Amino acid sequence: MATRIEPFLLVNFKTYLESTGKKAIELALKLEKVGAETGVRVGVAPQFSDIERVAANVEIPVFAQHIDPIVPGAFTGHVLAESVSAAGASGTLINHSERNLKLPEIEKSVVHAREVGLTTVVCAGTARLGAAVALLEPDIVAIEPPELIGSGRAVSKEKPEIIVESVRRIRSVNGKVMILCGAGITTGEDVLAALKLGTQGILVASGIVKAPVPEGVLRDFCEAAQKYSQN
Amino acid sequence: MATRIEPFLLVNFKTYLESTGKKAIELALKLEKVGAETGVRVGVAPQFSDIERVAANVEIPVFAQHIDPIVPGAFTGHVLAESVSAAGASGTLINHSERNLKLPEIEKSVVHAREVGLTTVVCAGTARLGAAVALLEPDIVAIEPPELIGSGRAVSKEKPEIIVESVRRIRSVNGKVMILCGAGITTGEDVLAALKLGTQGILVASGIVKAPVPEGVLRDFCEAAQKYSQN
Amino acid sequence: MATRIEPFLLVNFKTYLESTGKKAIELALKLEKVGAETGVRVGVAPQFSDIERVAANVEIPVFAQHIDPIVPGAFTGHVLAESVSAAGASGTLINHSERNLKLPEIEKSVVHAREVGLTTVVCAGTARLGAAVALLEPDIVAIEPPELIGSGRAVSKEKPEIIVESVRRIRSVNGKVMILCGAGITTGEDVLAALKLGTQGILVASGIVKAPVPEGVLRDFCEAAQKYSQN
Amino acid sequence: MATRIEPFLLVNFKTYLESTGKKAIELALKLEKVGAETGVRVGVAPQFSDIERVAANVEIPVFAQHIDPIVPGAFTGHVLAESVSAAGASGTLINHSERNLKLPEIEKSVVHAREVGLTTVVCAGTARLGAAVALLEPDIVAIEPPELIGSGRAVSKEKPEIIVESVRRIRSVNGKVMILCGAGITTGEDVLAALKLGTQGILVASGIVKAPVPEGVLRDFCEAAQKYSQN
Repeated sequence: MATRIEPFLLVNFKTYLESTGKKAIELALKLEKVGAETGVRVGVAPQFSDIERVAANVEIPVFAQHIDPIVPGAFTGHVLAESVSAAGASGTLINHSERNLKLPEIEKSVVHAREVGLTTVVCAGTARLGAAVALLEPDIVAIEPPELIGSGRAVSKEKPEIIVESVRRIRSVNGKVMILCGAGITTGEDVLAALKLGTQGILVASGIVKAPVPEGVLRDFCEAAQKYSQN
Repeated sequence: MATRIEPFLLVNFKTYLESTGKKAIELALKLEKVGAETGVRVGVAPQFSDIERVAANVEIPVFAQHIDPIVPGAFTGHVLAESVSAAGASGTLINHSERNLKLPEIEKSVVHAREVGLTTVVCAGTARLGAAVALLEPDIVAIEPPELIGSGRAVSKEKPEIIVESVRRIRSVNGKVMILCGAGITTGEDVLAALKLGTQGILVASGIVKAPVPEGVLRDFCEAAQKYSQN
Repeated sequence: MATRIEPFLLVNFKTYLESTGKKAIELALKLEKVGAETGVRVGVAPQFSDIERVAANVEIPVFAQHIDPIVPGAFTGHVLAESVSAAGASGTLINHSERNLKLPEIEKSVVHAREVGLTTVVCAGTARLGAAVALLEPDIVAIEPPELIGSGRAVSKEKPEIIVESVRRIRSVNGKVMILCGAGITTGEDVLAALKLGTQGILVASGIVKAPVPEGVLRDFCEAAQKYSQN
Repeated sequence: MATRIEPFLLVNFKTYLESTGKKAIELALKLEKVGAETGVRVGVAPQFSDIERVAANVEIPVFAQHIDPIVPGAFTGHVLAESVSAAGASGTLINHSERNLKLPEIEKSVVHAREVGLTTVVCAGTARLGAAVALLEPDIVAIEPPELIGSGRAVSKEKPEIIVESVRRIRSVNGKVMILCGAGITTGEDVLAALKLGTQGILVASGIVKAPVPEGVLRDFCEAAQKYSQN
């Protein structure tokens, strides 16, 4: 990410039907449009088999949801960094709470992703683990308390102390990593709260993908982010 | 696989650079051409993020290398059967020795793949395990002794007794499943040996993908298969 | 199990505090007493670190709850068949639904346990998987639908069709394996139902371990088993 | 570890037959004797099913080789901290390279072990990962480059820079954690080198367990440690 523009709103498509196949393209296009109109940086993380066609249709950054800690070779059924990169991904999530890795695998994945030129977003569920992964020098650390994921109760409102503590601990070991937070984010107010607590953006999934009008929710998020940036 | 055409040669692209991204498309096109010219049924199993563009470029069946035992939902970084199907895959490998699953996961994957309309190829490394997975009623069982994978020593020549025993055990519990074998297959002679032992085709990876002229090797395979069929 | 005595009631101590450390010994002694008094064969499966002292205090068979698919060597933190055998275990559970193994690991564990002289109890959650593991020729197959484990709703009463179908499928591929069932068993009536459906005993955990008077519940079980045997 | 005595030599028994069952007790007794005679603190980490009888026979600290990230409950085949503690262990290894855990599991294991009163030794294979786990505030961090484990080529002689860098990185985030190193240690000279590089002891396995005269090798280690302490 040569030009770091904040705040950054990253939408994880997970394996929802609402964001699979053609719907992944349609959703990405809608979200891109809102980002362009509001001037807020938006990214999307579709499923592996949707990366290529999503990337072919949008200009916004496309992330993989995971890569395996492998180099090219005989690894049937694994996800190779080179492969998602060739499909058009510019970055990848690593160690999402729904796809946790063994500790040495995280380091290997970060190193290999960097070699391949992928922006790395390493996820962690607690403040301590956020600092631990920040030591591996990814581009971005995303803090998501697993117990709030998909809950509709925003971490930035329900458990602001987790974000405060995460930012404090991460910053004590890494001054430059971008920090996102996520879990339960559904309104612009939640986004604003997250930014005020010292994060540089959010990671969101069901709050957008499962919303009746995803682009409406993202617009609410972006307007909050815009307002925050202008202050 | 409404119309079952035998023999079937399935080429696993694994995560080799020689079969990633644009090279996956090029390779698939070359292999399709050989299949068409020889009249032998050929399939390819590219990486997840290459499925869509490979499927968009060839008519031959495209398989995923793995699916996760999940239904649509919050499963970041997982491989959803619906997703690979939407990308154009008509089937999937399950439980390859490089991506073994826990036992109940295999059953769930087979059931869910069937619901989604994917042809299932469940892999097993021994005769006993071949029969065990045949009880789950996949479309195809592929026998690959892991110790011979990538060895260049063909299972059908080096360890024919494994194939004989696999066919015997599988047939004692499942009369209709298609049986493939693989591991170390590099020549038409290896393919012929496999068919003579009672299999209906082969699963091959490095023997084709890492060959200097993959389409030449496949032609050798197909001619052997053709010769066998005509007898 | 040179002398196969039926029915067999195997009590899994899991990792409950009620069956840890000294309480494991006390519980095993109480259960042994009931078995002796009723003439019904009872076995116990304590935690790894309790096997030695439980086995030193009782005459009934002691089972490990799991072994890893390893041979002696550099496998820190793993459970070696030779080790639980040296501690006094005469058998082991394999592939319990709370400790599922990858498919080839099950085969390796069964083979290695047999070499070491351990009686093998391979668990499966469905009828099909029960038959699949029966092909590996363990001494015992235990059918436990995971959704009923710890539910207090006995599989033999709530879902008798699962047991019937399991027995049918297992017997179609293996005429001599002993069949246990489990999940939700809390009364002698549940045990009687299980035996009438064609099983040779039960696998039970919370129904005994978490009961206010475990030996009272086991007595109820044993009396039902005894009654069944005499008919 | 109320009284922290340095240096500390911790012998991992792994799953070697030479340190299984009765041989675990005999080996622990021999090692204890050398520690007592040389005044150097020695600990042992036998297999789960040997903890109780080893702990009943020696006064030196006994460690488990692993605990699972669980609390008491329905976790068949898992290793409960309370269980190894009840058997007499005073500490446990966590995340050994032969038993790596997912990142959040490491945090849970450290927290739960502490609640149960177990001394925690968290292993890491690289300097960065050493610092990452040091943030979780275990009692001890053990640095073991996996590629040197069991090699007979001592990390402290072959790759001193890894130790130097590990100590530097760990100390930058945690001033009080004890640091051990391991991998390939076979002589007193290797131990001396490790201590001189800023560690407080070593973690060793095959160098002792597989030696023709384990107590002789440990004596060599202890004399080196003693010499270092007196300077």
